Amino acid sequence: MNYAVIMAGGAGTRLWPISRERLPKPALRLYSEKSMFQIAVERLFPLFTPQQIIVVAGSAHSTVLAEQVPEIPKENFILEPEGRGTASAIALTAIHLAERDPDAVMAVLTADHFIGDEAAFRDAVAAAIKAAESDCLVTLGIFPEFPSTEYGYIQQGDLVGETDGFRVLEALRFVEKPDQERAADMLRAGNYSWNSGMFIWKVSIILDEFARQMPELFDQITAIRRTINTPAYAHTLSEVWPKIRKQTIDYGIMEGARRVVVLPVTMQWTDVGNWNSLKALLPEDASGNTVRGDALLMDCSGTLVFGSNKLIAGVGLQDLIVVDTSDALLICRSDRVQDVRKIADRLKTVGRLDLI
Amino acid sequence: MNYAVIMAGGAGTRLWPISRERLPKPALRLYSEKSMFQIAVERLFPLFTPQQIIVVAGSAHSTVLAEQVPEIPKENFILEPEGRGTASAIALTAIHLAERDPDAVMAVLTADHFIGDEAAFRDAVAAAIKAAESDCLVTLGIFPEFPSTEYGYIQQGDLVGETDGFRVLEALRFVEKPDQERAADMLRAGNYSWNSGMFIWKVSIILDEFARQMPELFDQITAIRRTINTPAYAHTLSEVWPKIRKQTIDYGIMEGARRVVVLPVTMQWTDVGNWNSLKALLPEDASGNTVRGDALLMDCSGTLVFGSNKLIAGVGLQDLIVVDTSDALLICRSDRVQDVRKIADRLKTVGRLDLI
Repeated sequence: MNYAVIMAGGAGTRLWPISRERLPKPALRLYSEKSMFQIAVERLFPLFTPQQIIVVAGSAHSTVLAEQVPEIPKENFILEPEGRGTASAIALTAIHLAERDPDAVMAVLTADHFIGDEAAFRDAVAAAIKAAESDCLVTLGIFPEFPSTEYGYIQQGDLVGETDGFRVLEALRFVEKPDQERAADMLRAGNYSWNSGMFIWKVSIILDEFARQMPELFDQITAIRRTINTPAYAHTLSEVWPKIRKQTIDYGIMEGARRVVVLPVTMQWTDVGNWNSLKALLPEDASGNTVRGDALLMDCSGTLVFGSNKLIAGVGLQDLIVVDTSDALLICRSDRVQDVRKIADRLKTVGRLDLI
Repeated sequence: MNYAVIMAGGAGTRLWPISRERLPKPALRLYSEKSMFQIAVERLFPLFTPQQIIVVAGSAHSTVLAEQVPEIPKENFILEPEGRGTASAIALTAIHLAERDPDAVMAVLTADHFIGDEAAFRDAVAAAIKAAESDCLVTLGIFPEFPSTEYGYIQQGDLVGETDGFRVLEALRFVEKPDQERAADMLRAGNYSWNSGMFIWKVSIILDEFARQMPELFDQITAIRRTINTPAYAHTLSEVWPKIRKQTIDYGIMEGARRVVVLPVTMQWTDVGNWNSLKALLPEDASGNTVRGDALLMDCSGTLVFGSNKLIAGVGLQDLIVVDTSDALLICRSDRVQDVRKIADRLKTVGRLDLI
């Protein structure tokens, strides 16, 4: 059986004040009446049935997420007591799926990315599942449209094959978020794609990689695996989980993995990471203003107004981000959106936990 | 008897969204827990007793104003069915006071101006009352601290006398709000003061001036005067008032009046006319930010945050005005505060009367 595994964690502090700790980033309704999580589930149909869709989430978020997708069976939610990095989340999911079907293929997918061309996305995942049949680890690479310093990159090597019209290339190297110069170099070089954070592989193959590259984690999840479908599961998970070292799948597995391939795809993909990337997804008026909610703008340009339930009047504003919620208002120069995270940090420092 | 007449009208649309049509500008709590109107009443004590304080206000505002100053007798509120300019408001008050005491002196005072040195203010009013005994129209002139284009000016002539340490000078001419160049000229000339809009005179003398300079208005208020203390008053007022032509006391009387004198005074006076003038009254932090309410500012300067009941977080803001209320939020570049009025105008045009 093939499974789509939606990683539905993620704090999203750069999207404060909409994003809060009690609400994971995928649960936010940012560019649609639907949350990013709902969109991430619905774009899988008809490639996957609801029974084939697995959701990995923090225990604290399971209720709000489950309410958003009533079609997904409750037993398809795999809950982490707390976030311990993507490597651990994927390992936990892999042992659950291995118990269901030792031959399962899992597609690890994100829920906090915008995908404009959903048909291209489904075609790519379907092709990647076929490619994964040859026991390789498949990553979806995104054709890089500009020298982003916000994304990781994958260096592409030789053509390995072609599947359903998609090229399958050797993945030579994973590059972490680069500086501006390095990003421009990679774009010029032409053989790099953005790392989408989406991976497709056989459960058996990824478990082999965990055993080889992360033996401590492998032992820990094996202990948990023995209790799946027994009354001891919850207790074991809560005992073992806090001892797991935080690690990302990129660093823990991908960089040192054997037989990694990349399947380049063009599908209008954006990581909705900060207020500027959200603004880019929403329609602009003639002056480059983007309004969601009730606003009256006079001589404003390049400004995002993301309102809630009150009129927002702007006079003479340029390149400003305005986000209003019932208990907090953010006003930020648009070249400072990365610093929104610091607001949340400072609120935590001063103990204003109700606001983060 | 001497009376203090507080003019408690004034729309203050440049202070939107705090200022609303249902709430006259003097009723606003801007720089204190008390409203400007409450402050305007209290600074009169002990020079005037509550019985000597007359309030002129729009009928629509009488309840909210009366609640703010329970010490003022209800019969001391003189209500205009609608605003018809300061000339009409003063004329209406003058006939009421003339009925109480034909020898009354009235000090026409404002309720939307900040006065830092209240003792100097009381001393000046007391001196002006003495000066008014010689049948002249006395105006309080403010020593001009900078070439304001927001205030009217009074050109001072020869010294007429001295009263309680205040000089009393001939008032040669009233100048409307000048442009920047003209304002600088007047400051250089040295014989101009700002027109405070505060006037002190005998009721009998100002009624003579109305009869001479504004005979139509004089006839109209004489018709009203005949019904004071009769059951016909309310009906007559509502019949006559809408027919009165709107006019200011400056233009209708002062510019053409005989025997006008100006009494220059220094008392830290500011017309709280827009968000910048309010900001100047409130304490600043080291970066020139002014905060009322709950704010977290990161790398901001010269910014006013006037909040209500939520956290306002600012990142990288410069010279911005932020005013939050329960149903409307204003964000305005501080060099555009004069245009806040246009926001209120536009809301009226599009029928959003709940917000103005």
